[in-house]
Amino acid sequence: MTKPTLNVGLVGSGFMGKTHIFGYVLASRVFDLPFDINLECVAETTPELANDMRRRFGFGRSTANWKAMAEDQNIDIFDITAPNMFHKEMALAAIAAGKHVYCEKPLATNAEDALAMARAADKARVCTQVGFNYLSNPMFALARRLIAEGKLGEIRSYRGVHAEDYMSDSSAPWTWRLDPDGGGAFADLGSHTIATAEFLLGPVVSVLGSLNTIVRERTGPNGESMSVNVDDVGHALLKFENGAVGSVEANWIAKGQKMQHDFEVNGSDGSLIYTQERLNELLFFSSDDQEHMQGFRKIVSGPSHEPYGLFCVAPGHQIGYNELKAIEIMGFLKAIAGSSPEPFNFRAGARVQFLVDAVAESSATNSWKTV
Amino acid sequence: MTKPTLNVGLVGSGFMGKTHIFGYVLASRVFDLPFDINLECVAETTPELANDMRRRFGFGRSTANWKAMAEDQNIDIFDITAPNMFHKEMALAAIAAGKHVYCEKPLATNAEDALAMARAADKARVCTQVGFNYLSNPMFALARRLIAEGKLGEIRSYRGVHAEDYMSDSSAPWTWRLDPDGGGAFADLGSHTIATAEFLLGPVVSVLGSLNTIVRERTGPNGESMSVNVDDVGHALLKFENGAVGSVEANWIAKGQKMQHDFEVNGSDGSLIYTQERLNELLFFSSDDQEHMQGFRKIVSGPSHEPYGLFCVAPGHQIGYNELKAIEIMGFLKAIAGSSPEPFNFRAGARVQFLVDAVAESSATNSWKTV
Amino acid sequence: MTKPTLNVGLVGSGFMGKTHIFGYVLASRVFDLPFDINLECVAETTPELANDMRRRFGFGRSTANWKAMAEDQNIDIFDITAPNMFHKEMALAAIAAGKHVYCEKPLATNAEDALAMARAADKARVCTQVGFNYLSNPMFALARRLIAEGKLGEIRSYRGVHAEDYMSDSSAPWTWRLDPDGGGAFADLGSHTIATAEFLLGPVVSVLGSLNTIVRERTGPNGESMSVNVDDVGHALLKFENGAVGSVEANWIAKGQKMQHDFEVNGSDGSLIYTQERLNELLFFSSDDQEHMQGFRKIVSGPSHEPYGLFCVAPGHQIGYNELKAIEIMGFLKAIAGSSPEPFNFRAGARVQFLVDAVAESSATNSWKTV
Amino acid sequence: MTKPTLNVGLVGSGFMGKTHIFGYVLASRVFDLPFDINLECVAETTPELANDMRRRFGFGRSTANWKAMAEDQNIDIFDITAPNMFHKEMALAAIAAGKHVYCEKPLATNAEDALAMARAADKARVCTQVGFNYLSNPMFALARRLIAEGKLGEIRSYRGVHAEDYMSDSSAPWTWRLDPDGGGAFADLGSHTIATAEFLLGPVVSVLGSLNTIVRERTGPNGESMSVNVDDVGHALLKFENGAVGSVEANWIAKGQKMQHDFEVNGSDGSLIYTQERLNELLFFSSDDQEHMQGFRKIVSGPSHEPYGLFCVAPGHQIGYNELKAIEIMGFLKAIAGSSPEPFNFRAGARVQFLVDAVAESSATNSWKTV
Repeated sequence: MTKPTLNVGLVGSGFMGKTHIFGYVLASRVFDLPFDINLECVAETTPELANDMRRRFGFGRSTANWKAMAEDQNIDIFDITAPNMFHKEMALAAIAAGKHVYCEKPLATNAEDALAMARAADKARVCTQVGFNYLSNPMFALARRLIAEGKLGEIRSYRGVHAEDYMSDSSAPWTWRLDPDGGGAFADLGSHTIATAEFLLGPVVSVLGSLNTIVRERTGPNGESMSVNVDDVGHALLKFENGAVGSVEANWIAKGQKMQHDFEVNGSDGSLIYTQERLNELLFFSSDDQEHMQGFRKIVSGPSHEPYGLFCVAPGHQIGYNELKAIEIMGFLKAIAGSSPEPFNFRAGARVQFLVDAVAESSATNSWKTV
Repeated sequence: MTKPTLNVGLVGSGFMGKTHIFGYVLASRVFDLPFDINLECVAETTPELANDMRRRFGFGRSTANWKAMAEDQNIDIFDITAPNMFHKEMALAAIAAGKHVYCEKPLATNAEDALAMARAADKARVCTQVGFNYLSNPMFALARRLIAEGKLGEIRSYRGVHAEDYMSDSSAPWTWRLDPDGGGAFADLGSHTIATAEFLLGPVVSVLGSLNTIVRERTGPNGESMSVNVDDVGHALLKFENGAVGSVEANWIAKGQKMQHDFEVNGSDGSLIYTQERLNELLFFSSDDQEHMQGFRKIVSGPSHEPYGLFCVAPGHQIGYNELKAIEIMGFLKAIAGSSPEPFNFRAGARVQFLVDAVAESSATNSWKTV
Repeated sequence: MTKPTLNVGLVGSGFMGKTHIFGYVLASRVFDLPFDINLECVAETTPELANDMRRRFGFGRSTANWKAMAEDQNIDIFDITAPNMFHKEMALAAIAAGKHVYCEKPLATNAEDALAMARAADKARVCTQVGFNYLSNPMFALARRLIAEGKLGEIRSYRGVHAEDYMSDSSAPWTWRLDPDGGGAFADLGSHTIATAEFLLGPVVSVLGSLNTIVRERTGPNGESMSVNVDDVGHALLKFENGAVGSVEANWIAKGQKMQHDFEVNGSDGSLIYTQERLNELLFFSSDDQEHMQGFRKIVSGPSHEPYGLFCVAPGHQIGYNELKAIEIMGFLKAIAGSSPEPFNFRAGARVQFLVDAVAESSATNSWKTV
Repeated sequence: MTKPTLNVGLVGSGFMGKTHIFGYVLASRVFDLPFDINLECVAETTPELANDMRRRFGFGRSTANWKAMAEDQNIDIFDITAPNMFHKEMALAAIAAGKHVYCEKPLATNAEDALAMARAADKARVCTQVGFNYLSNPMFALARRLIAEGKLGEIRSYRGVHAEDYMSDSSAPWTWRLDPDGGGAFADLGSHTIATAEFLLGPVVSVLGSLNTIVRERTGPNGESMSVNVDDVGHALLKFENGAVGSVEANWIAKGQKMQHDFEVNGSDGSLIYTQERLNELLFFSSDDQEHMQGFRKIVSGPSHEPYGLFCVAPGHQIGYNELKAIEIMGFLKAIAGSSPEPFNFRAGARVQFLVDAVAESSATNSWKTV
């Protein structure tokens, strides 16, 4: 009994391109997927780069023409890990050709574009996936489950942070991230905080944003000094439909922080604390415990937190970042097979983009914005 | 060579009253103070309560008439640990009688009152102290020193939290804290975050506040349901004179949190992380370390962090909350002796109150407020 | 209703001398003690040192003649914080004069002496206390309670460590600790691990020791090189009467460790983890929790852990090292009043010394020793 | 330019079988390996099991005859993940047929067998690898580097623990691990502590062991009560050639512990602390730091810790347990290609087994054993 095969056409060979590849190869061994996956073609900006990528990672073909790949009859999944400003054009082309599309986050550089992409996908009835792979963590599923089961009681407050330091060196080379169309700290990292907040607490109903450029001059591509217009540190205050209030911070100049994607949820009967820096741990406080024995429990990931056990039957051995991508891909393939809903489709990605834009508008107008 | 003696008149016998007493007795043994301290008189709301307190803690006298004590010729330091709404009247009376005044935080229930108190003290040339004892922590001194010495480079961002859960149980008995004049989470806990932020980074120049009442009904003093008007969770976004941006959160319904008075400071060359839950530790990241050996260092308090060594010559043995109070008192007595400036006088307390009020006004008007 | 007063005569003004003083002044305010405490007299090696101590800490008198103080009719508690090699002579003199005796740990430099001291105290019917103040921690009481209540099930294994680095610098000045009669790492720190192990698990029935001198030459009092005969690192394997097995390590050259007095207890249904470096926290794992929500709970000290609440009514604010001494003193005074058993008397101290000696003998003979 | 292909024949489909598969597929994408890897054949105890495995993981063939696979001309690497008691026979057969052999740890059930295996491999000039994949952690390489560079000064003491709780439930079903030939806690987990200790500090020269059976009765395969003869908790004291002393503990009934494979190394100038539960972190204390800024630094894995950067270009994102296996496999293939020495060959595995046996003999004879 052989499975049908899905041919993947991947655009991009950077950090995320490689992560997707590792995700595919892991997913296809770890899970009993409904499809075989074939790394059919890889697209890069030059034939040389594309060919290097092909050889190194075992793709069948390579190309410098992503458009042709988008229309290629032999491609089933069009996978976009190119810089943010290209997402829209690429996704629309692939959707138009009837491909399922897997796009790295953020889905687009503004909410309007993201919504157009989501609508196009809906209309074309293709499956889509946006790469918010932190949401694939079994510990996130556990957090959501504990909230849904009422273990925290009524949810009251939330704090999210995503801080790293990859832009903290002001003399570091210019990157497309510093282009206004590239985003900024809030678009890049704040989007994670927003996605996580709604994943756990449900809809946000109003936001107050404050985006700030701290490092105002950076070194341009030719060594020249360039003024910077994107935010380094962004804050948003949030009000949720369920009555809870919260805040999120995005910060890419937090010296020393490598993966401070943290959250804390407080309810009337319990709380959760998490840091992505220790992605296999979730802290849970329950007021059901007797007072003298109460405390935050450090739950470590194990087989009782699906699908951890498929990676490793022994608890506490730990999965890593790439394995979250494999879980994301598993969910996407199951959705393509029709056996489960899309885990985080373009609609969901557009929702995040909408909130990111609302934060930016709120910041520009110095006022709360209902969403 | 005997020292002059200062007679203390203490108002209040609650949590803070006891903490002050422990602070006095510790300070007088641990430090070589310029004065002997005599617990001369204690005032409470009834003669019985006051007398119990006298007997239990060894005061010379007790009274139910705090006014008389404020005017008592034999009292040198008038020490106020009564509920917040009484601070102003008590302090002004003592100042008028020429006493040095030690007042628990917050100094007053609004900035105007606090400023009037500070002005009265200035005019009367008495020494004053507000009880922000977290600032007395040797680890705070270290944090400020590292920043001042440039070990963090240019300061860029700040995050402060003070969350506890003592108001998380909505069926718990009514307290004066729930009275609008009592304050609210931001007045009670947010004042610590504000004081800490300026202690470390210098002046805040604008604030955006959002104060929220989450538990809208609580059980009143006679078991009746009462609607609540003070905030349970308050956020403020901050801009500092030095160009840094930040946020603070005050939360007294953070289930499971007992002492989450935390801060993180990020600079161009380093960062600091602290939690009051482990008050003898400060985390410090320096980009001076070679990349493969970089990391947040857990500095534990020891004799190289004055005045820890006077409490214990061995590092890592830990001082506790009450010992912070002893350090605060030592600073106050030195200021009375004229040998050092007041550590945190009524002017400083009024500044905090001014910022707390600015946050509340900003919250009410939904707009940034320059301060 | 006045309380009777106990006059204290303290020998020694070093680290422990000061800690005892802070303990007395704290205990007399924090607790409702059966006695008033009067710091009557302090003894040091010279009249000058003793007088300095008197003035600084407010003793009534000072002396360079501890023997006279031991026989002084006006002294009720004879308190010994002199170097270990003097404990026996001092304690026996005070016992002979009918004093209650409070002696710092270790009780003596060998088990025989310690036993003689305990017997003398029994015969004289005086109360005694050995200064193992870590055992006074409310978190230790909680640990023992959880074990006694069966929350861990049948106890199976134990690990204890007491490592610091105060002897790690081989060029540091000679101290009496390096004298064979002074002890060594196991006598100094291992005694804590032994006392803690039996406090929690009950009697040890056999030991296997290995004591090692790692820094074999150190700088003597006149700058000369001296060979060292006391152990820097000592290990002991333990078998307990209850069937559990375990190990302890004492190490005073553990660079970077300031207060690594740790233990872990594993039972059939749960485990406990503790580090003295965070003396207000106890980690507790219970297999009663559902599997997907299991984890070590970080219990933080609070009013439900007596007598924490007498120091501070708010949980999580933390007590410090000196406050453990105050609790120890409270227990001793209650025993003198006859209202509770001696918390850790000379019999208990002799038991620890007996085990420390057994470890040393085992190390010397390379064989297990039944105790 | 195509690479030569190595055909893998894998025995076993349990925890370790799957881990090896994930390791192969990851290694072949993450690294630029000298060979292509082909999962040629899988062997299990029945044709059905083997065929399931083949289909699920994409092997070319399956078999219930491991011997035939060992002699199969088409197999290049014979990979053994069968229970410990079969390692010897399988490895010798494969070596005899000229295969490179990759064997899970422990290499054999006793040192004599392990040595015979190592000698056979040497004689046949095949490459070998034992699966001590914790040693492949970039953080272990960093630890060894810091020691080798003298960052810790002269090494003085060591503590190793490997505790989990997978055998803590005494009513859990019988497994081959409980068979005397299966090993015991020290053979299973203690072998990791021994391998790690020598990896970091170099040769052990004498051992003192104590192996204990705590759960003396367990439920046999048919529900009957069976007495158990293998150790649940094992301790060994160690002396190293470099003069350091240390201890290791193996414990498979440490309730609540899922991956407590920890070590601490103390030197004259610094220390290291590690726990496998957080495999992307290494704590490093250096006395080169100024005293008031000293502390254990939490180094998190990143691109400066090779080969982390090939898995993920961003620091702090974390690799997992399976990725350690991929690194191990990479090292093995480079050794087969002759471009680097075998990372941990049968000689190294036999050395660990020799030490494990020495610990057992020492335990049986209650005496130190020179090794």
